[in-house]
Amino acid sequence: MEIIKPRTLSGFMELLPEKQVYFEKMMATLREIYSLYGFYPLDTPQIEASEILLAKGGGETEKQIYRFTKGDTDLSLRFDLTVPLAKYVALHYGQLTFPFRRYQIGKVYRGERAQRGRFREFYQADIDIIGDGNLDIINEAEIPGIIYKTFSALGLKRFVIRINNRKVLNGFFRLAGVGEMAGDVMRTVDKLEKIGTDKVRSLLVEELGVAAENADRILDLITCRDRGTDPLDALKQYQGMDPVLDEGITELAVVSQYLEQFGVPQDHFMIDLTIARGLDYYTGTVYETTLLDHPEIGSICSGGRYDDLAGYYTDRKLPGVGISIGLTRLFSVLEDQNYLNPALTPSPADVLILPMTEDLGPAIAFATDLREAGVRAQLHCEKKKFKQKMAYADRLGVPYVVFLGEDEIRSGRVTVKDMGTGEQIQVSPAMAVAGILEKIKEKRTVPPIGEPAKD
Amino acid sequence: MEIIKPRTLSGFMELLPEKQVYFEKMMATLREIYSLYGFYPLDTPQIEASEILLAKGGGETEKQIYRFTKGDTDLSLRFDLTVPLAKYVALHYGQLTFPFRRYQIGKVYRGERAQRGRFREFYQADIDIIGDGNLDIINEAEIPGIIYKTFSALGLKRFVIRINNRKVLNGFFRLAGVGEMAGDVMRTVDKLEKIGTDKVRSLLVEELGVAAENADRILDLITCRDRGTDPLDALKQYQGMDPVLDEGITELAVVSQYLEQFGVPQDHFMIDLTIARGLDYYTGTVYETTLLDHPEIGSICSGGRYDDLAGYYTDRKLPGVGISIGLTRLFSVLEDQNYLNPALTPSPADVLILPMTEDLGPAIAFATDLREAGVRAQLHCEKKKFKQKMAYADRLGVPYVVFLGEDEIRSGRVTVKDMGTGEQIQVSPAMAVAGILEKIKEKRTVPPIGEPAKD
Repeated sequence: MEIIKPRTLSGFMELLPEKQVYFEKMMATLREIYSLYGFYPLDTPQIEASEILLAKGGGETEKQIYRFTKGDTDLSLRFDLTVPLAKYVALHYGQLTFPFRRYQIGKVYRGERAQRGRFREFYQADIDIIGDGNLDIINEAEIPGIIYKTFSALGLKRFVIRINNRKVLNGFFRLAGVGEMAGDVMRTVDKLEKIGTDKVRSLLVEELGVAAENADRILDLITCRDRGTDPLDALKQYQGMDPVLDEGITELAVVSQYLEQFGVPQDHFMIDLTIARGLDYYTGTVYETTLLDHPEIGSICSGGRYDDLAGYYTDRKLPGVGISIGLTRLFSVLEDQNYLNPALTPSPADVLILPMTEDLGPAIAFATDLREAGVRAQLHCEKKKFKQKMAYADRLGVPYVVFLGEDEIRSGRVTVKDMGTGEQIQVSPAMAVAGILEKIKEKRTVPPIGEPAKD
Repeated sequence: MEIIKPRTLSGFMELLPEKQVYFEKMMATLREIYSLYGFYPLDTPQIEASEILLAKGGGETEKQIYRFTKGDTDLSLRFDLTVPLAKYVALHYGQLTFPFRRYQIGKVYRGERAQRGRFREFYQADIDIIGDGNLDIINEAEIPGIIYKTFSALGLKRFVIRINNRKVLNGFFRLAGVGEMAGDVMRTVDKLEKIGTDKVRSLLVEELGVAAENADRILDLITCRDRGTDPLDALKQYQGMDPVLDEGITELAVVSQYLEQFGVPQDHFMIDLTIARGLDYYTGTVYETTLLDHPEIGSICSGGRYDDLAGYYTDRKLPGVGISIGLTRLFSVLEDQNYLNPALTPSPADVLILPMTEDLGPAIAFATDLREAGVRAQLHCEKKKFKQKMAYADRLGVPYVVFLGEDEIRSGRVTVKDMGTGEQIQVSPAMAVAGILEKIKEKRTVPPIGEPAKD
């Protein structure tokens, strides 16, 4: 038989088992935290009719989308989870209860040029809260609490949630005489972190034709934090001058006001007027989350408030707020930066049982006891030498090995070896189960991410 | 703006939120149980190079596969989880530890004719144990224990695990003079349940040219259970006549021998010599699992032992044993047959908090306390009438509603309403958290499946 060389497509993440354990733990943590905030789980097809996914059309999406026909149906793989959500809410509107909260963790597809850290198939983890006609600002205020709890539960400590409000920017741009081209100005100031203040000023003045004075006013305000001024204070001087700006300022204030009650420490949050988020479709609060020690990675969790989720599919006004984590990319950069927690033992079992007798009955019964108690147990009955079996336990990183030989069976005991300390004890099966269960309980709460010690 | 009618492709399951809760609980249960048996989680891309997926080629696969090009790459969506596993093990062989145990729950794609109960995108949940060169029979013996524990944890009670052994069939067919066409005979007897003994006999004699006497011998043996004879007893008369048959009998005996220790009750297991499993690639024990009350559904969990997992991708001999659940189809039939457990409340939150004051601080702080304790809490701050808010709680099926008005805030208490009993109590926030946590703990252990009471 001719052998076909096995390969995995480039741009498609495929993890080794130990790494997959970390990834699964991250997903489990997200599911758990999102559930605590009352979000439904949701799952939608990875394939949709192309006319649905491309309703908006144009631009990068159309270039990158995986599109094909099967029979005579024009199909596409979803490129995000937002468009399928819009379709879902429009399609099932009558059967949903609003505000509708859902989380979805799933793969999406973009045929980008393959390069390190860029994926063509990747997980996104999204949460959204959708209102029917209206959605209270308190939903926007809750998001930083969710972001904080999510990343804390994952094991991250040194990160900051940065927020802004599109109404503030739009209102202020109008005041600064550039209301007509607010979108272009926004996309330009969005580059501040990348290219710096001077270059953004040049772009504003030379490319967009903004008067130098107005460009200065804009940059002055949005970079006020760099000069130690609280953005809410800096905005005070403009209060009462533009209704949209006023609304934005009030919203920013509300979101800031309840941080403590939502459990967000002050040092994990800031109002940052430079954050614009490119997408046209945001209309209120916008969010970014950055690692203090790796700002170059950019935002690891972003989103915002929007007024019209599903305008392509329904006449109903469905405003919402949502955030998204690009989980595959996040995992990839965390791995690169040594953020996978070494304290998490990525072994597939807590106990490896090595029967030493012909009759496997007692060993199997003990494995069943362990599993019944919730301990992950693997039987190793291959015809191998003892040394090979211990090497197997080592390679798997199993914390406990249990031996069951004739001695043990005769005395109704098992020998438990702690692979960490090398210590070995003989106890009754029931004692062994209880003792191991007690010790592994701590291990279960170990988060998947651990920040590397700094020099 | 032109509205595009939202739709979901036929053959693609998309559940309403309440149903999705059940589906998620099923997946969570599978992950938990598979982990107890020492299986690594695994995830592989949904898209592979077509040459990889179609290495075997031919038949239904090639017709049904979703295949397309992106740039100049010939791509396909995976149609099962076995071929990607074979590729994975061959590709990463040097970095894996054998026996390699993995579970994988993921979507696969088959462009079948759409009809009720047939899906083009569906979840499979697979476990496999792969050996390097050898794999002990005890791994085959462990599978019924895993199947039993999995379905019991899901909440099923009335099911039976049926096993057979391909060596028994192959050996016996040789004895019966039809060894040359063992494959054809096997595929024919596989139809026994569907078309009955008489039609199978006709097919054997008329289509395959099996001598009538031999056809009778074959049917006599494999249907022995119908006449009250234990297959292991029936096989005794053939012992010592064919080495392959002997091996098969020994293996069947080993698998039966340890059932009790593996925790499988006798009445949930049977040796059934009529089970053949169509696939050529099984070589030892084969498994099927059927619902006692719905045999028409067919097997809900099947698999078997194979000698050569990855022959298309490597020269190494990688024998294994695995089973698969077609999760989407299983869910669909269970739903149809009223097997979704009504005792599981598919609400997205345990508590809905209704603040009754302008200042939302105390309500938000209470929500944070609940979440900190692991209680799923949702704040409802929309500008709605009280009645509408209670209707929202009802529609979500939230078991507890908490009111926080001026009275409560002044006295440092919260009012908790049990939506099941209508009972309402005022207690301290800490007492409320503890009380609710205690009550919902029971609810968490409710399995997703419940068999409907029979008349």
